[in-house]
Amino acid sequence: MSTALEQQPDQHADLERERLHRAALCALAEPGDIQVTRLVQDHGGTWLYERLLEPVDDPLVRETRRAVAARLAALEPERLLEQGDRLGLRFVIPGDPEWPGQLDDLAHVEPLHDRGGVPVGLWVRGPLPLTELTSSVAIVGSRSATDYGATLAAEIAGVTSRAGVTVLSGGALGIDEFAHRGAVAASCPTVAVLACGADRIYPLGNERMFARIVHDGALVSEAPLGGSPMRVRFLARNRLIAALTRGTVVVEAAVRSGALNTANWANRLSRQLMGTPGPVGSAQSQGVHELLRRSATVVTRGTDVLELLGASGEHLPEERRAPETDRDRLRPRDRQILDGVPRGSPATAADVARAAGADILRVQSALNRFEQRGLVEYVLGGWVLTEEAARS
Amino acid sequence: MSTALEQQPDQHADLERERLHRAALCALAEPGDIQVTRLVQDHGGTWLYERLLEPVDDPLVRETRRAVAARLAALEPERLLEQGDRLGLRFVIPGDPEWPGQLDDLAHVEPLHDRGGVPVGLWVRGPLPLTELTSSVAIVGSRSATDYGATLAAEIAGVTSRAGVTVLSGGALGIDEFAHRGAVAASCPTVAVLACGADRIYPLGNERMFARIVHDGALVSEAPLGGSPMRVRFLARNRLIAALTRGTVVVEAAVRSGALNTANWANRLSRQLMGTPGPVGSAQSQGVHELLRRSATVVTRGTDVLELLGASGEHLPEERRAPETDRDRLRPRDRQILDGVPRGSPATAADVARAAGADILRVQSALNRFEQRGLVEYVLGGWVLTEEAARS
Repeated sequence: MSTALEQQPDQHADLERERLHRAALCALAEPGDIQVTRLVQDHGGTWLYERLLEPVDDPLVRETRRAVAARLAALEPERLLEQGDRLGLRFVIPGDPEWPGQLDDLAHVEPLHDRGGVPVGLWVRGPLPLTELTSSVAIVGSRSATDYGATLAAEIAGVTSRAGVTVLSGGALGIDEFAHRGAVAASCPTVAVLACGADRIYPLGNERMFARIVHDGALVSEAPLGGSPMRVRFLARNRLIAALTRGTVVVEAAVRSGALNTANWANRLSRQLMGTPGPVGSAQSQGVHELLRRSATVVTRGTDVLELLGASGEHLPEERRAPETDRDRLRPRDRQILDGVPRGSPATAADVARAAGADILRVQSALNRFEQRGLVEYVLGGWVLTEEAARS
Repeated sequence: MSTALEQQPDQHADLERERLHRAALCALAEPGDIQVTRLVQDHGGTWLYERLLEPVDDPLVRETRRAVAARLAALEPERLLEQGDRLGLRFVIPGDPEWPGQLDDLAHVEPLHDRGGVPVGLWVRGPLPLTELTSSVAIVGSRSATDYGATLAAEIAGVTSRAGVTVLSGGALGIDEFAHRGAVAASCPTVAVLACGADRIYPLGNERMFARIVHDGALVSEAPLGGSPMRVRFLARNRLIAALTRGTVVVEAAVRSGALNTANWANRLSRQLMGTPGPVGSAQSQGVHELLRRSATVVTRGTDVLELLGASGEHLPEERRAPETDRDRLRPRDRQILDGVPRGSPATAADVARAAGADILRVQSALNRFEQRGLVEYVLGGWVLTEEAARS
């Protein structure tokens, strides 16, 4: 896998200029603005940004220019990336090795509520590389979840993430929260895609959970740094949840729940759409039952989801024979990384990455998780296997 | 509508001979025996019965003859129909005005568990003509129903039967029972299709309900009079439940429930297959969830069922405007019959049938129900409207 640094100097400079301009566009335009996403898809971020600055009136960008004029004057693009750096966030754009290619499907799908298109870039906070999302599932639902829905969301999240399917949700209270919690309880990384800036904590009640997500997973947002969680941004955000994943599970949703908007996007994107049934008298299941009547497939537990995503198999408990070791319980990629950690003299994360042939970000995420499970320890400026892990 | 009595004498004699022989075949062969049903479909009951008696070895009927030889010797066909008469049962066969033509679809569907084909005839007990089943729905499910399922079955049965869609089920304990009860509570006739003889009460715990069904609905069976409820007969019976109705609703079913066999038949027959979701942890909902994943449509209440059967409309409470009278609450056909009952001098059921242009059996069923609701009364050997009904 090539990284930006291994590219030719010219290519590298082009990519960094494009990143700068896309960060500027991200700060100027609303997430999922269909004019902006279409122009950037067709011509690139640098092309659009330069045309916004030009004194010449260009009919293609006239509307966008009018919309962003006020903010454009005050904007200092370089400071945006510096600010992200300071806060520990990276701005990922197409062309980066970490860019999740599945988002490009959004270029071919009709807008919904005037939102649509491939995002110009994503602010990311946390060590999990977005490429991990090639095998992922969205678990979404009502903010006012019942105990029934909360338990179900956590169960599905636990089973799918243990099988190597990363759980993605919206970081909200209710079903989103329990989906993330289920992954965390299984010691697996999880990803929250936010409607506000990736540097913000919203809702505040989820602060501790966000800290946990950032430890080995990622917070992702198309909104500018510091951006507020406005209604229209939730609609734009929902398309990313559907597009980033191979399928969406709606666990509980009343008839007007925002989760149904995510479901609509999953359908448009030909992703697998799933729903969990519930008691017919429960208002929180009514929206899901509507979905099940129309386009969603019934799932009642994590293994159903794995089966539908075609990810069933090696990680299902039924198929195990020999007694498990801690290493057995790891996902194949994590096992490879653990095998790169030495028994003797400590190695840096970069050393481990080289040894395991893995991406440095992924290694950092994995080492943090391994440490928590007592598999590795940080000593003398580097990582080694714990005595117990070395024995097994 | 022509009745058997209005037919030409020859035709009438032919039909009665056919009835006699089909009653004999019904007593000789197992319900849904695929050899017998196929031969009778192709050649008629008289043809097959005569060949069973002939001394000449006919390769077509050889197997059937071998199977029924013991019973054939002891059989007196005339006594079967006499016995039915005495018990108040009729034996309905193709060619009768009351024959439900939708059963003929079974001629074109592959057998399941070695059962299949159009039944050679049906023993019927109760005044409801089987022609009423052109607008009907089957509600079936687990014998060990939960309160949740029982309530749901009764709700769906009440709403659909009030809308003029006759509820049909298997007369068993559990979901079947509550489906019948829901119809009865709505003062609507209901039909039970049994695996034992239509003259028997099985299970005994449902005796009072059976009495209520027979009052204005019908008990139906393909099994001979006195026949026991054997496992193989349930499988044959299930195909009739699916074939007689426009759709089947499975309310609760564990993973091995017999209701899933009925669902399978509904699918084969291209009838609407519906299922009610439930809590994912409930064993009684697991079989339904499996169905919903594969081929059934989610329904959560009676109006959903009406919508899928295309029977929604005039009877839905939302659409009502003017205050209801007792007469308004009747189904259109019942209203027509009530309009045939005089205010003054009493009329026999036959008089009312003539006045309303309706079938005598249907009129008898309706008058029994009207009496219970205080709309008509039986005085001086005939029926009149009650004072209250006459006023409204």
